[in-house]
Amino acid sequence: MTTTAQLLASPRETSDGMHALVYHGPGKPSWESHRRPVLKSVHDAVVRITTVTICGTDLHILKGDVPTVSEGRILGHEGIGIVEEVGAAVSVFRKGDKVLISCITSCGRCDFCRKQMFSHCRDGGWILGNTIDGTQAEFVRIPHADTSLYPLSPDVREEAAVMLSDILPTGFECGVISGCVKPGDTVAIVGVGPVGLAALMTARFYSPAEIFAIDVDDNRLKVAKTFGATTLINSSDGSAVPQIMALTRGEGVDVAIEAVGLPATFDICQGIVGAGGHLANIGVHGKPVVLHLEKLWDRNATLTTRLVDTVTTPMLIKALHSGNLQASELVTHRFKMHDILQAYDTFGNAARYGALKVVLEA
Amino acid sequence: MTTTAQLLASPRETSDGMHALVYHGPGKPSWESHRRPVLKSVHDAVVRITTVTICGTDLHILKGDVPTVSEGRILGHEGIGIVEEVGAAVSVFRKGDKVLISCITSCGRCDFCRKQMFSHCRDGGWILGNTIDGTQAEFVRIPHADTSLYPLSPDVREEAAVMLSDILPTGFECGVISGCVKPGDTVAIVGVGPVGLAALMTARFYSPAEIFAIDVDDNRLKVAKTFGATTLINSSDGSAVPQIMALTRGEGVDVAIEAVGLPATFDICQGIVGAGGHLANIGVHGKPVVLHLEKLWDRNATLTTRLVDTVTTPMLIKALHSGNLQASELVTHRFKMHDILQAYDTFGNAARYGALKVVLEA
Amino acid sequence: MTTTAQLLASPRETSDGMHALVYHGPGKPSWESHRRPVLKSVHDAVVRITTVTICGTDLHILKGDVPTVSEGRILGHEGIGIVEEVGAAVSVFRKGDKVLISCITSCGRCDFCRKQMFSHCRDGGWILGNTIDGTQAEFVRIPHADTSLYPLSPDVREEAAVMLSDILPTGFECGVISGCVKPGDTVAIVGVGPVGLAALMTARFYSPAEIFAIDVDDNRLKVAKTFGATTLINSSDGSAVPQIMALTRGEGVDVAIEAVGLPATFDICQGIVGAGGHLANIGVHGKPVVLHLEKLWDRNATLTTRLVDTVTTPMLIKALHSGNLQASELVTHRFKMHDILQAYDTFGNAARYGALKVVLEA
Amino acid sequence: MTTTAQLLASPRETSDGMHALVYHGPGKPSWESHRRPVLKSVHDAVVRITTVTICGTDLHILKGDVPTVSEGRILGHEGIGIVEEVGAAVSVFRKGDKVLISCITSCGRCDFCRKQMFSHCRDGGWILGNTIDGTQAEFVRIPHADTSLYPLSPDVREEAAVMLSDILPTGFECGVISGCVKPGDTVAIVGVGPVGLAALMTARFYSPAEIFAIDVDDNRLKVAKTFGATTLINSSDGSAVPQIMALTRGEGVDVAIEAVGLPATFDICQGIVGAGGHLANIGVHGKPVVLHLEKLWDRNATLTTRLVDTVTTPMLIKALHSGNLQASELVTHRFKMHDILQAYDTFGNAARYGALKVVLEA
Repeated sequence: MTTTAQLLASPRETSDGMHALVYHGPGKPSWESHRRPVLKSVHDAVVRITTVTICGTDLHILKGDVPTVSEGRILGHEGIGIVEEVGAAVSVFRKGDKVLISCITSCGRCDFCRKQMFSHCRDGGWILGNTIDGTQAEFVRIPHADTSLYPLSPDVREEAAVMLSDILPTGFECGVISGCVKPGDTVAIVGVGPVGLAALMTARFYSPAEIFAIDVDDNRLKVAKTFGATTLINSSDGSAVPQIMALTRGEGVDVAIEAVGLPATFDICQGIVGAGGHLANIGVHGKPVVLHLEKLWDRNATLTTRLVDTVTTPMLIKALHSGNLQASELVTHRFKMHDILQAYDTFGNAARYGALKVVLEA
Repeated sequence: MTTTAQLLASPRETSDGMHALVYHGPGKPSWESHRRPVLKSVHDAVVRITTVTICGTDLHILKGDVPTVSEGRILGHEGIGIVEEVGAAVSVFRKGDKVLISCITSCGRCDFCRKQMFSHCRDGGWILGNTIDGTQAEFVRIPHADTSLYPLSPDVREEAAVMLSDILPTGFECGVISGCVKPGDTVAIVGVGPVGLAALMTARFYSPAEIFAIDVDDNRLKVAKTFGATTLINSSDGSAVPQIMALTRGEGVDVAIEAVGLPATFDICQGIVGAGGHLANIGVHGKPVVLHLEKLWDRNATLTTRLVDTVTTPMLIKALHSGNLQASELVTHRFKMHDILQAYDTFGNAARYGALKVVLEA
Repeated sequence: MTTTAQLLASPRETSDGMHALVYHGPGKPSWESHRRPVLKSVHDAVVRITTVTICGTDLHILKGDVPTVSEGRILGHEGIGIVEEVGAAVSVFRKGDKVLISCITSCGRCDFCRKQMFSHCRDGGWILGNTIDGTQAEFVRIPHADTSLYPLSPDVREEAAVMLSDILPTGFECGVISGCVKPGDTVAIVGVGPVGLAALMTARFYSPAEIFAIDVDDNRLKVAKTFGATTLINSSDGSAVPQIMALTRGEGVDVAIEAVGLPATFDICQGIVGAGGHLANIGVHGKPVVLHLEKLWDRNATLTTRLVDTVTTPMLIKALHSGNLQASELVTHRFKMHDILQAYDTFGNAARYGALKVVLEA
Repeated sequence: MTTTAQLLASPRETSDGMHALVYHGPGKPSWESHRRPVLKSVHDAVVRITTVTICGTDLHILKGDVPTVSEGRILGHEGIGIVEEVGAAVSVFRKGDKVLISCITSCGRCDFCRKQMFSHCRDGGWILGNTIDGTQAEFVRIPHADTSLYPLSPDVREEAAVMLSDILPTGFECGVISGCVKPGDTVAIVGVGPVGLAALMTARFYSPAEIFAIDVDDNRLKVAKTFGATTLINSSDGSAVPQIMALTRGEGVDVAIEAVGLPATFDICQGIVGAGGHLANIGVHGKPVVLHLEKLWDRNATLTTRLVDTVTTPMLIKALHSGNLQASELVTHRFKMHDILQAYDTFGNAARYGALKVVLEA
């Protein structure tokens, strides 16, 4: 499998510049002038950004936690824009199309892409704002445009649609689909930050009977209530497991969704998953966890891990258009793009500002 | 969704010619000189053919039964060859690679391709030897080469591998996978010509307990025995249904696979499918059938239709390499490519010659 | 597999009588005195009926259309009641428990029950009000009580819960589950009488993007709108197929649910099912249909038939309790049990009375 | 859900005694006289044992590792016999029937049984030779006989069939089915003792391309070769993970089956499972393991645990009869029942005697 993109004979250098959010090392983001991106491969598109958002992963990058991101990188892997230019091999999109940029780049040709595991694409996966320049800019180059962009109708509400770049497919695929949520189920979501709320919203596609929201922050729990959680549990006193076991008459839950990424929150999940149940991990873990196989070996439990594949993006776009997905409820703050440092501050201090997702418009 | 392939500015006209099997109307095939194909799109490859085979569909075309095939068309949708030239957007293959040509062309980008339904690709599907020139030639142009060709190891046995262009994925996907064959099942295959035998071979991947072969031709049934059928039933006296119901103590079969395409053979299938069973249709039907819903409505039966998607081609290649798929057992006659008219005669009179599949080498 | 129930040495004859709706041949129902049922097997329970309803099948029986029903039979296969007495082998229920009576009797031991196909139970299936006396009476004997009754909480709303005896699991299992309704799907329901509406209500468990309701009766269509149909199509002018194909831009629907049981309604379904789609038959068919395999053979379509298994009854009870299933919306008319002939008249002239389901209380 | 079995008014005391293998505390088994069991519930059967085998779990009990087993308990949860007497509620079996005794007792009525999770039956599960007297005796009482025994044909080869009491469904369900083995897969089985070999035999039902056998004992590996392993890896030098990663060109395996129950063997499994792969745990674990979520969180991996449900027993019986399951290949030593202490010695020193499974006949 060859994965190197084909280089154009002479990449056209544009005279125009642009502004972008550039990472200059831990704690040093800057909104600054930058060369505008150009097509590098016949499969590329250049997109003019109209709306972006900031992801928790971007905060991790700024802390220096993501070693694949080198200094000088433009951040951002979410966004909406207008196609500005396409390579000769791009056939799905043309200049002027409004598009959703997926956080996952997919070549559509490798063995993983053919198995619908775009997250592990041999020439893609999560590369935007990571190993190549990202979307928090006026323009972005999108490799494998035909299979990494999604068409949007011109009149779509952008601040809602941009939630489909990453957070909604992540909650849905890694939490709800991998967790096999079914009508009538009892579902527990541990951690109701933006990703946990995305799992909550999309779990409701399958009409579970009960949704327990578990978090250490009462404000977040209140928000979860408005998103449809049926029971709120503050886990800060360490009693989440016995509380949930009591609420389920000792049976545990059908689906436990881990949306934090810490040993403590994983522990809650493994303590409450019922016989025959599912533990769906969404959280990004930096450390190993202790798995109590001495208790779980005979529980007919299923534990899943997953990096979002964004295979459900077309379906989520349909749900958005049909009114079944109130994606804009995730948005609490709105900024102009050139105020992105302020937006980072708001998002990075979410508890203080009561922020969920922040949206930036060009 | 734009589906038109991008035209190259000036398709290079090669000075070299070639030979090809050209359809000049019903009953008029000809092995003759022809222009050699050239790249028309950046996604194309030109492949030098080393091995091809003939499909039952090719016989139908020659009878004039397939109106989408116009006069002057080069026939053939199966083959193996060596990549001769690739367009600028092709990244998986390069000149010199040995490849399997899939009977189904897949763009890899449209909504159907993204759902793994390559058969309904918006810019592909079954087009080779149908709406564009095919493989029964010295060279063939393959559109969407990255997603329509499959890499083969240089030392593969070509006469075995060419069975994976069409017949083996067809029997496997339309019959065995759609029919949900499981270990311990009782499976009936109605029609044990080449496609039925392909279903039989691949049904055995799942270790059914019994495989009934049903046909009107005793010689075919004998062959089915060597492929692993456990019970042979000659249906020419019209007693197949009562025979099978008796053999299954009135229960019927778990899976009935229709591999002919006639109302009479479909009738056998619907007469023997057990409660909770599957009826998987492979046959190409030219007429409607009478479906006995007054008997089937409460039988919890599942009836499937399918044009092969060739999504299992990589898996079948693995099975071929691991020795789990004796594909060359389907080959009874071998010819040189320039003797293709003789090969058509042999294949077209299969009963007389005891032919299953015929293979032609360049 | 032995299936005969074990007879008690001497079935206790009760001195008490009761009233029941007895079938005395076509057009001759009668609410009359009848012996009260007694335990015949250690697996039996006798239930005192508190709520029943009438099914379209009961109307068919009264027309003489169901030959398995002999004269003298007490009708009815739906109901709620209080357990009066249990056989020695019954362990799940005891006297005084409130129970839902399933329309399907299941022994829990035969091969079909072990595969969750209770509809084909070797000693059960649909027998109540068919081959044994049914629920439209003051008392009923329920064979295989442990696996044919379901516990209800004492405070359940009975008129809602009785919809779970038959109509809701029928619409859900035969239409929605067999049809594989998914979030974002386009679903068409042909026939929006009570069963079609039950399919509509439960299809919404999976958040489809669009639900087309198709019927010949505008009043029914109006009702379907209140149940969540997004598009209404009156098929009386024969244009349902072209209308739906236009609405779906020629693609057809993901799921077509047949909830009538006539060749004409089946025809609509096969005319609108999209490539890769599902046709889920619920309707009871008295005649064969013409299946257009000459069009469908390459459409990757799946057609299912099913008699309800009532495997989802526990889940539907959970959904009812959690407020996700507004089952009482199906009820339009309420009667006392002794007015059952009037209730039959209302239900048998549903169009005139604007009736969906009628409920009778003891 | 009531789960207490119904007591007979006066359990008939038989005058006949029998012999049985009784546990008198750690290291103290005894083959001794014992009262013969009698029916205690209408659902019970008493079975005269003709063939039994010994499980690794029995060895653990004898070491005192299983606290639920009290002194005085008759051991054994596997066996074949002839029905001697049945309770009034038993309808599937009658005196004289040859039966397979499942290691899992299933009431067939509780919520778990209705979900096919017999392992967690509210009034069953693994109780034989654990919380009630077991099969290593001349007679055994089987609760819930209709759903805990399986009919065998009179001429079945008993030493083969007795492998279906526990070991074959365990390897198949917990390893192969939970691990989703598919045609063409690369499967690794860590630990090729009897259970690992059972997984190996049944993995072959699905025609994987490669089966790696991993063990610390070269003799066991040699045996695995005769069972169809394609690659043998001795893990005693700690290099199993790098060896397998090299053999799979860095991709890892599709399915890793843990058939030992130790942190070290679990570690091998998590080290080799490929992106999108399955880790199916069969082993009984006494301690927690460290799960490397910091590596696995984005690998789209699925980890399953399971106590055998024996839902596949009917299918395995079919496979045995059809010749697709060479179960007797697991049997290396044969004894008469009264030599059971010698059989325990052989099985308990398997390496010294080259023992896999030992079979005892009455």
